[in-house]
Amino acid sequence: MTDLRIAMAQINTCVGDIPGNTSLIMSRCRAAAARGAQLVAFPEMTTTGYPIEDLALRASFQRAAERAVHTIATELEATGLGDLTVVLGTLGTNDDGRPTNEAVALQGGRVTARYAKHHLPNYGVFDERRIFAPGDSPCILTLGDARVGLVVCEDIWQDGGPVAALADEAIDLLLVLNGSPFEEGKGIIRTELARKRAAEVGAPVAYVNLWGGQDDLVFDGHSFIVAADGAWMANAPGFEDALLEWEVPTAGAPPVQGQVVDFASDDEQVYRAVVTGLRDYVVKNGFRSVVLGVSGGIDSALTAAIAADAIGGENVVGVSMPSEFSSDHSRDDAADLCRRLGADYRVQPIAPLVDAFQAQLALTGVAEENLQARVRGVVLMAVSNREGHLVIAPGNKSELATGYATIYDAGSIGGFAPLKDLDKTRVWDLARWRNAQARLHGEVEPIPVSSIEKPPSAELRPGQTDQDSLPDYALLDEVLDAYVEHREGREELLARGFDEAVVEKVLSLVDRAEWKRRQYPLGPKVTALAFGRDRRLPVTSRWRERAE
Amino acid sequence: MTDLRIAMAQINTCVGDIPGNTSLIMSRCRAAAARGAQLVAFPEMTTTGYPIEDLALRASFQRAAERAVHTIATELEATGLGDLTVVLGTLGTNDDGRPTNEAVALQGGRVTARYAKHHLPNYGVFDERRIFAPGDSPCILTLGDARVGLVVCEDIWQDGGPVAALADEAIDLLLVLNGSPFEEGKGIIRTELARKRAAEVGAPVAYVNLWGGQDDLVFDGHSFIVAADGAWMANAPGFEDALLEWEVPTAGAPPVQGQVVDFASDDEQVYRAVVTGLRDYVVKNGFRSVVLGVSGGIDSALTAAIAADAIGGENVVGVSMPSEFSSDHSRDDAADLCRRLGADYRVQPIAPLVDAFQAQLALTGVAEENLQARVRGVVLMAVSNREGHLVIAPGNKSELATGYATIYDAGSIGGFAPLKDLDKTRVWDLARWRNAQARLHGEVEPIPVSSIEKPPSAELRPGQTDQDSLPDYALLDEVLDAYVEHREGREELLARGFDEAVVEKVLSLVDRAEWKRRQYPLGPKVTALAFGRDRRLPVTSRWRERAE
Repeated sequence: MTDLRIAMAQINTCVGDIPGNTSLIMSRCRAAAARGAQLVAFPEMTTTGYPIEDLALRASFQRAAERAVHTIATELEATGLGDLTVVLGTLGTNDDGRPTNEAVALQGGRVTARYAKHHLPNYGVFDERRIFAPGDSPCILTLGDARVGLVVCEDIWQDGGPVAALADEAIDLLLVLNGSPFEEGKGIIRTELARKRAAEVGAPVAYVNLWGGQDDLVFDGHSFIVAADGAWMANAPGFEDALLEWEVPTAGAPPVQGQVVDFASDDEQVYRAVVTGLRDYVVKNGFRSVVLGVSGGIDSALTAAIAADAIGGENVVGVSMPSEFSSDHSRDDAADLCRRLGADYRVQPIAPLVDAFQAQLALTGVAEENLQARVRGVVLMAVSNREGHLVIAPGNKSELATGYATIYDAGSIGGFAPLKDLDKTRVWDLARWRNAQARLHGEVEPIPVSSIEKPPSAELRPGQTDQDSLPDYALLDEVLDAYVEHREGREELLARGFDEAVVEKVLSLVDRAEWKRRQYPLGPKVTALAFGRDRRLPVTSRWRERAE
Repeated sequence: MTDLRIAMAQINTCVGDIPGNTSLIMSRCRAAAARGAQLVAFPEMTTTGYPIEDLALRASFQRAAERAVHTIATELEATGLGDLTVVLGTLGTNDDGRPTNEAVALQGGRVTARYAKHHLPNYGVFDERRIFAPGDSPCILTLGDARVGLVVCEDIWQDGGPVAALADEAIDLLLVLNGSPFEEGKGIIRTELARKRAAEVGAPVAYVNLWGGQDDLVFDGHSFIVAADGAWMANAPGFEDALLEWEVPTAGAPPVQGQVVDFASDDEQVYRAVVTGLRDYVVKNGFRSVVLGVSGGIDSALTAAIAADAIGGENVVGVSMPSEFSSDHSRDDAADLCRRLGADYRVQPIAPLVDAFQAQLALTGVAEENLQARVRGVVLMAVSNREGHLVIAPGNKSELATGYATIYDAGSIGGFAPLKDLDKTRVWDLARWRNAQARLHGEVEPIPVSSIEKPPSAELRPGQTDQDSLPDYALLDEVLDAYVEHREGREELLARGFDEAVVEKVLSLVDRAEWKRRQYPLGPKVTALAFGRDRRLPVTSRWRERAE
């Protein structure tokens, strides 16, 4: 065979935005052609965005996706790019009319090959057996005398199926279109997997992945290529656009090294994932600015810093809402934070608002504490309604899991909680990491040091600290990780050597938190309702029936 | 064969409450034995409740379910019921350690047969391919010389599989354990399906179904038996406990008619479904009382009437929260409603509360309207926190789908929205039906006639009515049903003859409502978070790690 020059377009699609995705695809095709590529490959479900959940079941959406594929093929041909082979993901339908997760190849103004994803993941964040029918035939593209095997994402994670079927086909390249969400440490797992499949098919593996935020998922990109012998050939950075090029070697010829970049540290990857998730939630939903309560504590400080990195400090509104229990240092730290970020800083004391309710309701104890917290929520919603900012919530994973928060307060209302997947220990780590980055680049540290160092407190009564109600965070987070993330039961937790009293305390906090949420879960029910039988719809979607 | 006397125990289990379900099973076994039954059958997943969602994946929960099965078998034997054959549903594990949706037969103190559900539904409200491995072997129980084929729920909804495998086995009865949720008109579909399967296996079909509310699902019971020729042999009423008995005929003998009861009207079934759903949400979550805002309008009036039917009027707190825009008739109707229901009636004027916010925020327009609405939400939450009532929300399906509501107002905050699956037209129908029932029984009509007859209004500005913003409800509900429930697109809606301007209006309202919810969806994210990788957990669950 002659050499085959490929380009992998690592892009950030948006669910439902078929016109936007189409124009993004076209621009990358032009760029790839200009760089001399003969084949350009895109991530999973490029035309529709990913994951589309129950949108897959709407006939009108299926028709729109199919039209987009033909529009792209026709426009490529019409603009002189008919020779370029374009491989992209889309929503297909099989002979029974059932939706499929499809990869298509376009050339000469038409669809030259179609492949339906065979292994449909239906665990964790994936629900693909719900919405797709599996494919059952492998697919090999022929470009000159080069043979390219084509599969989609989960197909390489499961043994057997299409990859096994390609093992005896003497292919020159295995091309994998992916929508693989970010998880800490996943880069190494993907690499090892690709090496295994390269050995299985005796050819290089080119892995092109989506990047960007979609609802509560973040895709990291990190596209890469390994040679048939597993050698690292080329890779793209995480969390940004890339066009990764490589020459597929002639059979028997030694592979040529492409562009290689270092992986970022774990802290940096997590931080960039959180920034990406927030930015895309804001931008893809059509907002330009956010508002949040700033208390002087670490959670709202890190949240504001992340927001400033995501959309610019000038688009962040911080509202300080002191009560009689707020300390002076809290107010000072909140003001200092907003100065450091260039954010809009406002003060709305809540005493007059709480007093008005108390004149009628005369609450005491926890009900009184919750009232203070909820009045703050109403203030943020009012500012949002008046000025159009998205409300964001600084609640972290440790406090959400243990219910150490008031439902509908400033920490839990709003559209997006950037810290919801970070436990408290990680919140401190990332705050320190972000400040260290600033020092390294000679910039102002975004987070006041005293917000990082003072003991955490909700400040809803005099002298209150989190550790009045919770175990020490380092220990709490360790137990939560085992119980919540790794599904360990009481028996397993004790066998690991955790103190019995601590285990009892944490399990009872989490159970109690679940019970609290049962009293006020109307968010999910309302969301599920509006689309009737469609129980799982993407939240950030630009799909519009009337624009079909 | 000799006659086989069977009993089908139609019961209301609770997800996660293994001890409670176990004692319910034991009490029904004793009752069945006392009535001379040789076999007693329970609904799907009896020990664990249904549906258990991602709880299936917890090893500690799997162990607890398995222990419960052995406890039941041992106790039956120890209390002299060892001869009774008990067929119940439970959480099993297969040879690979993966969870299965299992039916087991107990006799003589031990498990005598195990059957794993073969067809795993993964559509609509079901996610069973996510959590279960399918079974692959049919199961026949032998009782004396009677042969009983055993399958679970979806197994009879799909062609092929275990029912087809039983066709040549000369069975005397096909026994089906079900967890089949209520849908209007589903009774006839189930009957026709059972008749088809009876013909296929040449034997009677006994269909035992769960009843009760579980999170946002309601199971209706309506257990029944059809003969081999499809004749209607016996059935249980909907929405209540039942022990349905029948004599399985000797081969060739004519079947004997059992107890037959009439089906209720559609309106009555829907009303009882909604009452059941609310009552079980309240009771299974450990509450005894509810609080809601009563505006004098139809939605809060019907919601309060449903709550009174569910848990008694004396356990309902209605809070009237008039503003300067509330009409006199609204206050009168709200007071009248609570008198009719025997509910606790309170008045909390919101003007002083709104004034306190306005002194600081000076809102106008929609932001001002929303402030009024949200202040009401804070009042209800405060009453709930102080007195321990569950907040319930009167929002109906038409207004939730079109976003004709303020997020976090008195219509949308809280733990349960009884009307969320009823469109506005149905709300009026059920209010009229409920009052007619009262007249029929010589009781006080629960709902003030003027709440039914006046034009609907949010009363957030002078002279406001719903039809200022929405199409006429009869038309709106028809379009919503096609768009939301039947997934029709713009093209299909127009082809059906709906006016283009109306279609544009409704689609744009629903899109806008979805966009609004993206700003404040933290309910689902928070719920998903606390259990980490478990994205779909039952809300109403009594499962406790520490009680294992």
